Amino acid sequence: MNKLKLSLISLLFSFLSFNIFGEKQYNLEVFVDGLDHPWSLVELSSGEFLLTELPGNLKLISQDGSSIKEIANVPEVLFRGQGGLSDIVLHPNYKDNGWIYYSYSAYIDDQKELNTLFVDRAKIEDFELVSIENIFIAKANRKAPAHFGAKLFFLEDGTLMITSGDGFDYRESAQFLNNHFGKVLRINDDGSIPSNNPFLNIPGALPEIWSYGIRNPQGIFQDKNGLIYENEHGPRGGDELNILRPGVNYGWPAITHGIDYSGALISPFKEMEGMEQPLYYWTPSIAPSGMTIYEKDLFPEWKDKIMISNLVYKDVRILALNEKKEVIKEEILFKEIGKRIRNIITLSNGELMLITDKKNAQLIKVKKI
Amino acid sequence: MNKLKLSLISLLFSFLSFNIFGEKQYNLEVFVDGLDHPWSLVELSSGEFLLTELPGNLKLISQDGSSIKEIANVPEVLFRGQGGLSDIVLHPNYKDNGWIYYSYSAYIDDQKELNTLFVDRAKIEDFELVSIENIFIAKANRKAPAHFGAKLFFLEDGTLMITSGDGFDYRESAQFLNNHFGKVLRINDDGSIPSNNPFLNIPGALPEIWSYGIRNPQGIFQDKNGLIYENEHGPRGGDELNILRPGVNYGWPAITHGIDYSGALISPFKEMEGMEQPLYYWTPSIAPSGMTIYEKDLFPEWKDKIMISNLVYKDVRILALNEKKEVIKEEILFKEIGKRIRNIITLSNGELMLITDKKNAQLIKVKKI
Repeated sequence: MNKLKLSLISLLFSFLSFNIFGEKQYNLEVFVDGLDHPWSLVELSSGEFLLTELPGNLKLISQDGSSIKEIANVPEVLFRGQGGLSDIVLHPNYKDNGWIYYSYSAYIDDQKELNTLFVDRAKIEDFELVSIENIFIAKANRKAPAHFGAKLFFLEDGTLMITSGDGFDYRESAQFLNNHFGKVLRINDDGSIPSNNPFLNIPGALPEIWSYGIRNPQGIFQDKNGLIYENEHGPRGGDELNILRPGVNYGWPAITHGIDYSGALISPFKEMEGMEQPLYYWTPSIAPSGMTIYEKDLFPEWKDKIMISNLVYKDVRILALNEKKEVIKEEILFKEIGKRIRNIITLSNGELMLITDKKNAQLIKVKKI
Repeated sequence: MNKLKLSLISLLFSFLSFNIFGEKQYNLEVFVDGLDHPWSLVELSSGEFLLTELPGNLKLISQDGSSIKEIANVPEVLFRGQGGLSDIVLHPNYKDNGWIYYSYSAYIDDQKELNTLFVDRAKIEDFELVSIENIFIAKANRKAPAHFGAKLFFLEDGTLMITSGDGFDYRESAQFLNNHFGKVLRINDDGSIPSNNPFLNIPGALPEIWSYGIRNPQGIFQDKNGLIYENEHGPRGGDELNILRPGVNYGWPAITHGIDYSGALISPFKEMEGMEQPLYYWTPSIAPSGMTIYEKDLFPEWKDKIMISNLVYKDVRILALNEKKEVIKEEILFKEIGKRIRNIITLSNGELMLITDKKNAQLIKVKKI
């Protein structure tokens, strides 16, 4: 097909999707209200939703949002600071095997002095978690409940990515491979180690590590071409969007585009040999939270764009990349909500679900007008 | 013309202008380098430019940027804090009468204790200001050189708008009509008072006042439909975009969407009877600087959009409004420059000129690829 033909087809496509009179193409609908620190959501093939709330609630929400049922038998979580019941994803073969995966923070000792990040898998029967198996405990014990990362994503090869934050007080550990602070990890669906993880032959390195030098990763998503995108909170400034590659060092805290909350320099370096630069960054911080790549057709103007919700500006950033994977456009969406946005999820029908933050929070559906 | 026809024409138009392969439609060219606190710029019909620098320099720049000549006889200005030689505009009939108008801060007393905002007009002959006439001195005397506003704009009716900031330490004065703190003012081209200013019959009110309850207005622009847009710095958050109407109270500091730098509340109120809400606001602050409305055809994708440069995020915000004057889209541009952007000006050929901030600053031209 020649370029002109392609142009005309794309043109027709954008004609169908883009309202040239400048009206919004979406409606925002409060789908569920009155939630308590909701954090993540997954859509089941039945059209129902499973929602996590940080205090340790797992909720089954009906297709139309009108009915909410508690799922019992959730493990005891540490709901304090940034900790609690966090992400939830389905096994790629969920339809056949019924496995759901969820992350949470919890104490590791009876004295309740140290806590870390856990990942379990379980099935649901009669509104109860059953067959619970713990498949991962981060070697990242901390005193304060901060910077867990705690995002989960199943790659197309069936392995599970886990983001693990630097624990705030342990930032130097992000540069060392003998712990799980400030890393993105990759395990098999049963918790075993994939045979092609990058550091398997490095003495002393933990085998789950996929990439390191990361701060507090709050979004992870693999696009249809197999690229893995990750976003993370910088210190004060230096929030990053990265493309994750195995074995790569993303530099935290040796290099950063941000400064400490105290105003002190963390590092005089913004770049260093052998450390990867972010694809894109925000200074000052926007506090990115969830991330999705929009690969549906309902809103063609968002097709293949990266959507990142954020807490500081209470909006969603939509990033367009060119073929060289440079960000060529940043647009601001959903600012009219006026609430910290904790997460953004693409639904199977092409609508989006936004999750607002903290107490008395909402699920907000982005629907086509 | 029916809607479909109009759609198809607009469609063709956007086809001509918008690269569907996602490449940038502009080049950035450093037009002039090594400037000292440049602040504003105006294009002459000859294609040359007049540039102000805060320290008190007025420069004539050749069409291609290669030659810069100083204009002599600029009045002594107070170059300190946010003060100095500030905005510059041409009289609507500049071609016939040669009047240029410029704003600046200067001491009002020999003891150099108090300063305020001045506006002069003058002509240029042999690289020198001549026929200098002071046409306005703000009744807004202050000790610290802060929050002058100092933007100028000639309306289509031939009157001159002057923005006058709240002086930082005098914010309550913005609510009182007996001074020029926190106001937008309107005068005739010779400094006299237009007969239809809103407060002429209010005892004690200063006759120049057009609207009030404003903080530190850094951008003013009238669109082709006659609407006057103004942007201003909020305290910590609450940066605003307003449409200015005569006699209207924009609420500062009685109502604000921001908080004090100390973290203290300035006002518990975000709205109040008789006070106008902003058209749009940014919390936290972006520190908006210059503003232009793009009414040229060179970049059709920006047509009729509001472009606001900013200092904190070092980019330009491009706002699309619908017919109801609601902001329906905010896009981020020119972030790749990585420098505080002090001003943005539309040139007669449809290109844009960006001015970076502080020392060793640049004029950057936005050209069509």
